[in-house]
Amino acid sequence: MANPTLLILAGDGIGPEVMGQVVRIIDWFGDKRDLAFDVDHDLVGGAAYDKHGTPLHDDTMAKALAADAVLLGAVGGPKYDALDFSVKPERGLLRLRKEMDLFSNLRPAQCFDALADFSSLKKDLVAGLDIMIVRELTSGVYFGEPRGIFEEGNERVGINTQRYTESEIDRVARSAFELARRRGNKVCSMEKANVMESGILWREVVQKVHDEDYPDVELSHMYADNGAMQLVRAPKQFDVIVTDNLFGDILSDCAAMLTGSLGMLPSASLGAPNADGRPKALYEPVHGSAPDIAGQGKANPIACILSFAMALRYSFDQGDEAARLEKAVEQVLADGARTADLMGPEGGSPISTSEMGDAILAAL
Amino acid sequence: MANPTLLILAGDGIGPEVMGQVVRIIDWFGDKRDLAFDVDHDLVGGAAYDKHGTPLHDDTMAKALAADAVLLGAVGGPKYDALDFSVKPERGLLRLRKEMDLFSNLRPAQCFDALADFSSLKKDLVAGLDIMIVRELTSGVYFGEPRGIFEEGNERVGINTQRYTESEIDRVARSAFELARRRGNKVCSMEKANVMESGILWREVVQKVHDEDYPDVELSHMYADNGAMQLVRAPKQFDVIVTDNLFGDILSDCAAMLTGSLGMLPSASLGAPNADGRPKALYEPVHGSAPDIAGQGKANPIACILSFAMALRYSFDQGDEAARLEKAVEQVLADGARTADLMGPEGGSPISTSEMGDAILAAL
Ligand SMILES: CC(C)[C@H](C(=O)O)[C@@H](O)C(=O)O
Ligand SMILES: CC(C)[C@H](C(=O)O)[C@@H](O)C(=O)O
Repeated sequence: MANPTLLILAGDGIGPEVMGQVVRIIDWFGDKRDLAFDVDHDLVGGAAYDKHGTPLHDDTMAKALAADAVLLGAVGGPKYDALDFSVKPERGLLRLRKEMDLFSNLRPAQCFDALADFSSLKKDLVAGLDIMIVRELTSGVYFGEPRGIFEEGNERVGINTQRYTESEIDRVARSAFELARRRGNKVCSMEKANVMESGILWREVVQKVHDEDYPDVELSHMYADNGAMQLVRAPKQFDVIVTDNLFGDILSDCAAMLTGSLGMLPSASLGAPNADGRPKALYEPVHGSAPDIAGQGKANPIACILSFAMALRYSFDQGDEAARLEKAVEQVLADGARTADLMGPEGGSPISTSEMGDAILAAL
Repeated sequence: MANPTLLILAGDGIGPEVMGQVVRIIDWFGDKRDLAFDVDHDLVGGAAYDKHGTPLHDDTMAKALAADAVLLGAVGGPKYDALDFSVKPERGLLRLRKEMDLFSNLRPAQCFDALADFSSLKKDLVAGLDIMIVRELTSGVYFGEPRGIFEEGNERVGINTQRYTESEIDRVARSAFELARRRGNKVCSMEKANVMESGILWREVVQKVHDEDYPDVELSHMYADNGAMQLVRAPKQFDVIVTDNLFGDILSDCAAMLTGSLGMLPSASLGAPNADGRPKALYEPVHGSAPDIAGQGKANPIACILSFAMALRYSFDQGDEAARLEKAVEQVLADGARTADLMGPEGGSPISTSEMGDAILAAL
């Protein structure tokens, strides 16, 4: 049987260097665990723009659609700030999400025991924290039409459209309930139904999916502003949170930062299952391209490595191998390996990106 | 000369009981500081719906437009959850904001020394925190058209429109820069210009207002998702934050919760100045109607009392009297007076809403 295929889009900033460590891990699984992948590499974001004048070439888009899974590093950087909106690095990522129809974005906000002191929150509020945010990723104000900057009378007006159909809400709600069943069996849905009609429809459809097909899962609804407060006040009250594209963008970043483990957090963006049962899927770290430290070997590769662990679990049904990799990471942290971003007030001397890779390989 | 006029809309839940204490404070300023107000009372939210079948009667709207300042308690409660969108308690508040054209919503996120331990953040991150969030309040996705739930093919779609004109951005930016000059002289503007055209226009106009008229103020721009992270990571980096209606809703609640002083935080919603130089203005606590404790004399009246202090400062040019009231509140806290919401892990026995009022009057 042919090996499963991976498309690696390392992107900009620290993307290539953290992805370099992931490639070593992939190779290890091929050598030692008989889990070989056919790996292809291509460009996205600013790197693609520099070469092709577009943040995602059509050929790359086609490869992404054909691959069993895509691994992405990060996109963007100040070099591209002045570019026109239509060719900004982010557009490459957004095109991938849209054309692969990756409607369900899983963002774990997890606090690693060894790092609980890094949180800006008091330790007892975050120790053991394990939230899964399910963010709708292909609709809402990110993609709704009309959009643009228009002339109106003597001035300009900036317009975007928040837009959700019942079926868009239905499918992401289902993915949240499915996940909850494999975790704490609790879903909290967040919107602004007190102010926005799209939020009213959201709440109604989530409730209906629940009542019809997931009555065993505990469901609650919360206004998104209160959600932001509750995340700060008592994050452990949550298990799975399901919310729309824009609220999900903000709330998941807030939750990620609560853990103090931002450089550690992976994400999975999943679409509908193919004929072979595999969902279309893209995996990427939650952190950005960190242009200020790019190319210096200082970046923490763990979020990107854990994104590959998510790929093992969600695309390749290799939950045990995913757990093996996650355990190696925990081991290494417990042993005190720290990249620069993980230096606490106690100080110490940080290891480099590739030394962190070495340590994880050794632990495997 | 006629006394300035105040319209009090106590609203729902704990609104009436906290406002009861504000009335005592208003009376004190009339008796002892020769600062008398003509006070009128009316209904808003669920209370107005119960009487008139609408969350804001036209007569009340007219009174609000005529008053020198409006003091609002809180609106909403589970009793009204099933009501049609158009008559929900929140619509009363939103109509006031819109028809009074209260475009600049000032939300201080301030950490009171005596309460720094209440924050879920580590004490050194929040002690002395003093941020002012300026939220645009009359436009954006809260009010943009088209909006509603529509049939489309075989299903329904929920639509809201994010919409900002140059002049709407211009005026709220000015109010932020003006405020910054009287504080730390720093403004951070937040949007999602990497994803939304309305954010691109927002960023451009804020920059232009700065360059033309406030070059002395330090200006930075941040994506709203990063803003949420930075608020959690290191909130003291901010002085004034200016942002749109929806981002402001979420980010200001997040910031408020960081302080640990949610029951303490006031807000001011200001419009354009009238002929007499007074802006149209509405003052209200940041907290909600807290239906779970309503009517039990447990609520903390301080946020509502400090909202009146903001009225003294921004509507009546009585900065010294505002400071007097704020000092009395700090005094009382330093002396250990605590309503139930301010009970720390050490415990102790809480005082009632009216006892907190007594204490503040005594300190005055
Ligand atoms: C880079 C940007 C377009 C993106 C988003 O807004 O979705 C990022 O913030 C994210 O959360 O993945
Ligand atoms: C009550 C509600 C309509 C309101 C809002 O969303 O603006 C509230 O959350 C606020 O922030 O004042």
